[in-house]
Amino acid sequence: MKAAVDKLFDAVSARGHVCIGLDTSADYVPPAQRQKAKNDADAVFAFNKALIDSTFETAACYKLQIAYYEEMGTAGLCAYAKTLEYIRGKNSIAIADIKRGDIADTAVRYAKAHFSGEFEADFVTLSPYMGMDSIQPWLSEAEKKGKGAFVIMRTSNPGMRDFEYLEIGGGKRLYHAVGDKLASLASQYKGENNYGLFGAVIGCTEKEEAAEIRKNYQNLFFLIPGYGAQGGGAKEAALLLQNGNGGVVNASRSIITAWQKEPKNEKADNNFAAEAALKAAVKMRDEISREL
Amino acid sequence: MKAAVDKLFDAVSARGHVCIGLDTSADYVPPAQRQKAKNDADAVFAFNKALIDSTFETAACYKLQIAYYEEMGTAGLCAYAKTLEYIRGKNSIAIADIKRGDIADTAVRYAKAHFSGEFEADFVTLSPYMGMDSIQPWLSEAEKKGKGAFVIMRTSNPGMRDFEYLEIGGGKRLYHAVGDKLASLASQYKGENNYGLFGAVIGCTEKEEAAEIRKNYQNLFFLIPGYGAQGGGAKEAALLLQNGNGGVVNASRSIITAWQKEPKNEKADNNFAAEAALKAAVKMRDEISREL
Repeated sequence: MKAAVDKLFDAVSARGHVCIGLDTSADYVPPAQRQKAKNDADAVFAFNKALIDSTFETAACYKLQIAYYEEMGTAGLCAYAKTLEYIRGKNSIAIADIKRGDIADTAVRYAKAHFSGEFEADFVTLSPYMGMDSIQPWLSEAEKKGKGAFVIMRTSNPGMRDFEYLEIGGGKRLYHAVGDKLASLASQYKGENNYGLFGAVIGCTEKEEAAEIRKNYQNLFFLIPGYGAQGGGAKEAALLLQNGNGGVVNASRSIITAWQKEPKNEKADNNFAAEAALKAAVKMRDEISREL
Repeated sequence: MKAAVDKLFDAVSARGHVCIGLDTSADYVPPAQRQKAKNDADAVFAFNKALIDSTFETAACYKLQIAYYEEMGTAGLCAYAKTLEYIRGKNSIAIADIKRGDIADTAVRYAKAHFSGEFEADFVTLSPYMGMDSIQPWLSEAEKKGKGAFVIMRTSNPGMRDFEYLEIGGGKRLYHAVGDKLASLASQYKGENNYGLFGAVIGCTEKEEAAEIRKNYQNLFFLIPGYGAQGGGAKEAALLLQNGNGGVVNASRSIITAWQKEPKNEKADNNFAAEAALKAAVKMRDEISREL
C-alpha cells in the first residue's frame, strides 16, 4: 500500500506546494448563498464543494481545521465528514487539522476515528506535549491503512516562544527535542521517497531558523502553515522545502475569502468564490515555485 | 456568575473528590443491553444515563473523553452531546476531555464549540504546547460564561518523560514552565476560593513530586487522572489535594466496567452496571477521604 506521505510527494511533484485550508466559517460564504442554504453547515459544505471543484487540479491537498466544524455542533461535523468524502471522491488528499494528543487506548480510538469511518482523512495533525506514547499508537494504524500525520514542532504564533522555544541544554530548544524524536521515528517508518510516514508542522513566518530546520530534519516532510493571512511569504516557505518537494504550504483565509477582495463581489455566489479561490491558489503556487 | 471552579469546589465539599470518567466504549456496555440498542451510540448513551442516575449524588463531576465518541462518528458525537445535556439536567458538572490546543481564531471557535451549544461543558482540558496564546482565547469565553479549563501540565504516562520532564535550567522542568504560566494566569483570573479559573492536569501515578507540585501551585485546582486502571492510588492522589479540596480524582474503567467483576454479571443490564459503578465510586471516594 502506498503511504500517504508518498501520495502527497507525488501530488506536490504534479501540482505544486499549495495546501488549501478549508477553515470554513459560514461567515466566509457569500451572503446570498448562505441565505439560500438550509442551515450554516449546509452552506459551508456547498461552499467547500465549489472550492474543491475549482481547485483540485491546482492544490496538492486540503487541510480542514476541525474547530470551524465543531463550532456548528453535530451538523457541522456532518459537513466536515461530507467534505472529507468529497475530497476522497476527487482522489485528492485531506489533512485533518485536529491536533490531538492523548495516550494509550485513547490514542488508538482517535486513530480509528480519523483514519477510517466517517471522519477518514489521509493525514492528521498531532500535538506532542504528552510524549511519544501519544504519537506511536497512531503509527500502527497509519501503517495498516496508508495514512500519515504531522506533529506540531515549531509553530508560527507569538506564543511559540513560551514553551517550544525553551532551551533544554546542548544548544537545543524544546522543538528540537520533538524534531529529534520524529526524525528517529521517520528513520524506522518511512515511505519510498525516504520521508517518514509522520512529518512535522513548521510555521513559515519566522525566517531565521527555517534553513537550519530544513537541514537538520531532512527525512521529515513539512506541513507549513502561516502563509498569507498569518504574514508568512513565499521566501520563508521556500526555505522549508527541499529539492523542490518535502513540504506543503497551507493558506486558508487568503484563498477561501479571496472573493471578498474581487470587484463586484456584492453579488458573489459560490462559483464566484471558487473562481477567486482558484486564482489565489494559482498565484500562491507560482510565487512559491519562483522561489525554488 | 459563579465560576465553574467554584461550583466544582462546592461539589467536592459536598460529595468528595471522585470524577467519573465516562470514557464509554460500546464494549463496556453489558452485551444484552448493547444488542437491544438501535446502534452502539444509543447503547453508550443509555449506559451513561444509567450510570449518571446512580452516581450523581456521589461523584463530584464527570469527565467525558471525546475520543470514545468520535470513534463512532457523528452518531457518537450525538451521544456525547446528549450525555452532556443529561449531566446538566442533574445539575452536575461535566469536564470535556478534549485536550485541544490551537491558536487565535481557531481557539475562539473551539471555545464557542465547547462552552456553548450542543457540546456545552463546564470545563475543557487543553494542551499547552503552542503557548499561552493557545490558552488565553478560551479564558475570555470562560469568564463570560462561568466556565473553566484544566491545562495538561504533568501527566502520568511513561512518555511524559520525553518532553514534560525536560530540564529547562534553574532546576526546572518543562512542566514547571507550564505550571508557572498557569499560576500567573490564576492569580489574575480566579474564583471566590482563590483557585484560578483554569487549573492543571496532574497525573497521580508518580508519587515523588506530588507534594512539591501541590506546594508550589497552591492556586491551581487539579484534575488528577491515573487512578485505578492506570495504577495510581488514594495515597498518591491525596498528596495532590489541599485542605480537603483543591482537586478531583478521575477514574474511568475501574468504575464504568466494575460490573464485569461482579458475581453473576453474565446477565447484567444497565441497572446492574450502574449499581456496580456506584459501589466502586463510593469505595474510591472513601479510600481518598481516609488519606486526607
